[in-house]
Amino acid sequence: MYVIKRGGRAMPIVTVQMLEGRTDKQKQALIEEVTSAVTKTTGAKETAVTVVIEEMSKSNYGVAGKRLID
Amino acid sequence: MYVIKRGGRAMPIVTVQMLEGRTDKQKQALIEEVTSAVTKTTGAKETAVTVVIEEMSKSNYGVAGKRLID
Amino acid sequence: MYVIKRGGRAMPIVTVQMLEGRTDKQKQALIEEVTSAVTKTTGAKETAVTVVIEEMSKSNYGVAGKRLID
Amino acid sequence: MYVIKRGGRAMPIVTVQMLEGRTDKQKQALIEEVTSAVTKTTGAKETAVTVVIEEMSKSNYGVAGKRLID
Amino acid sequence: MYVIKRGGRAMPIVTVQMLEGRTDKQKQALIEEVTSAVTKTTGAKETAVTVVIEEMSKSNYGVAGKRLID
Amino acid sequence: MYVIKRGGRAMPIVTVQMLEGRTDKQKQALIEEVTSAVTKTTGAKETAVTVVIEEMSKSNYGVAGKRLID
Repeated sequence: MYVIKRGGRAMPIVTVQMLEGRTDKQKQALIEEVTSAVTKTTGAKETAVTVVIEEMSKSNYGVAGKRLID
Repeated sequence: MYVIKRGGRAMPIVTVQMLEGRTDKQKQALIEEVTSAVTKTTGAKETAVTVVIEEMSKSNYGVAGKRLID
Repeated sequence: MYVIKRGGRAMPIVTVQMLEGRTDKQKQALIEEVTSAVTKTTGAKETAVTVVIEEMSKSNYGVAGKRLID
Repeated sequence: MYVIKRGGRAMPIVTVQMLEGRTDKQKQALIEEVTSAVTKTTGAKETAVTVVIEEMSKSNYGVAGKRLID
Repeated sequence: MYVIKRGGRAMPIVTVQMLEGRTDKQKQALIEEVTSAVTKTTGAKETAVTVVIEEMSKSNYGVAGKRLID
Repeated sequence: MYVIKRGGRAMPIVTVQMLEGRTDKQKQALIEEVTSAVTKTTGAKETAVTVVIEEMSKSNYGVAGKRLID
């Protein structure tokens, strides 16, 4: 059980934009490892760290003017 | 030196929103550790991982209806 | 009918990230209530307020290192 | 005092992008009113709602191809 | 083949939020044209420009308190 | 003068994250060119296109685990 004071912190908020296709296992490990990377280096409490994964499709993502799907 | 193919990948893109006030050393370590957390769990190449830090002020951030500054 | 001058404002832009699963009725009410909360407190015109809802799945969202789905 | 279970929710996350220049009082009221608009319409707990204000300058913001500052 | 130095730049990052429904051809052209608009005006290298398209549904998007779908 | 119907569209919304340091002239041209790139390829009306520039500092931005500033 974790206690946050009224007006407590729900930061840092980490958003990971990546191509779709990773497995559930990879996403689970990603959230765990990113959370500990953040707590270890910023001093934030584990309960304060939120991680959001945004999956992108290759048809909606481009580098150097080219979509990955093309 | 790292080589990316034309239309290579500049993903995953990781955005860390956190309260202002961390030291340069902490930010350096944060980018390093988050990058390895992502490469380790998603298989992405290190050169493909971009990390952006967005620093928030306590007057612009609230939880449970209260700003942290108040 | 609303008139905006060339170069008029389409701000504030409000993005609501929330777990998927709310009904259409809830989303309709959310956009309406958030818009009036913003106009009431910032003085922005109703026509200037844009609200974007981003729905998250429990498998892509984690707090304290744990995904909500796990 | 508010208690969140390990892996509890820090969602919805509301980001308000608006032009810089509002007073502290306005920002305080904005966070309060947006939080209650969200809890009232989505059923989310007040402690779960995070509001982030991102202030924009007129030189970095444009509509219909024109910056507000020009 | 493009070479980026270790710690090279993967910026600017352009995110285009737009209503769903555009064709693949339109998305291809959008990424190409936005990339050249950015390189032409900021001096950034083409290989440094990332474009991400986020498609919105009319049920999750509202202006002036009204969802587009309603 | 441009007219938008109640509940009209203020999309697409384009966010350009780039390193700080461009001149006002460059930002003006960037907003103009990105707006026409979007209208030309998506069919959106010019008045519907919003462009937001988010300027990053080299100390808050990293690729391949290294901050640009280091």
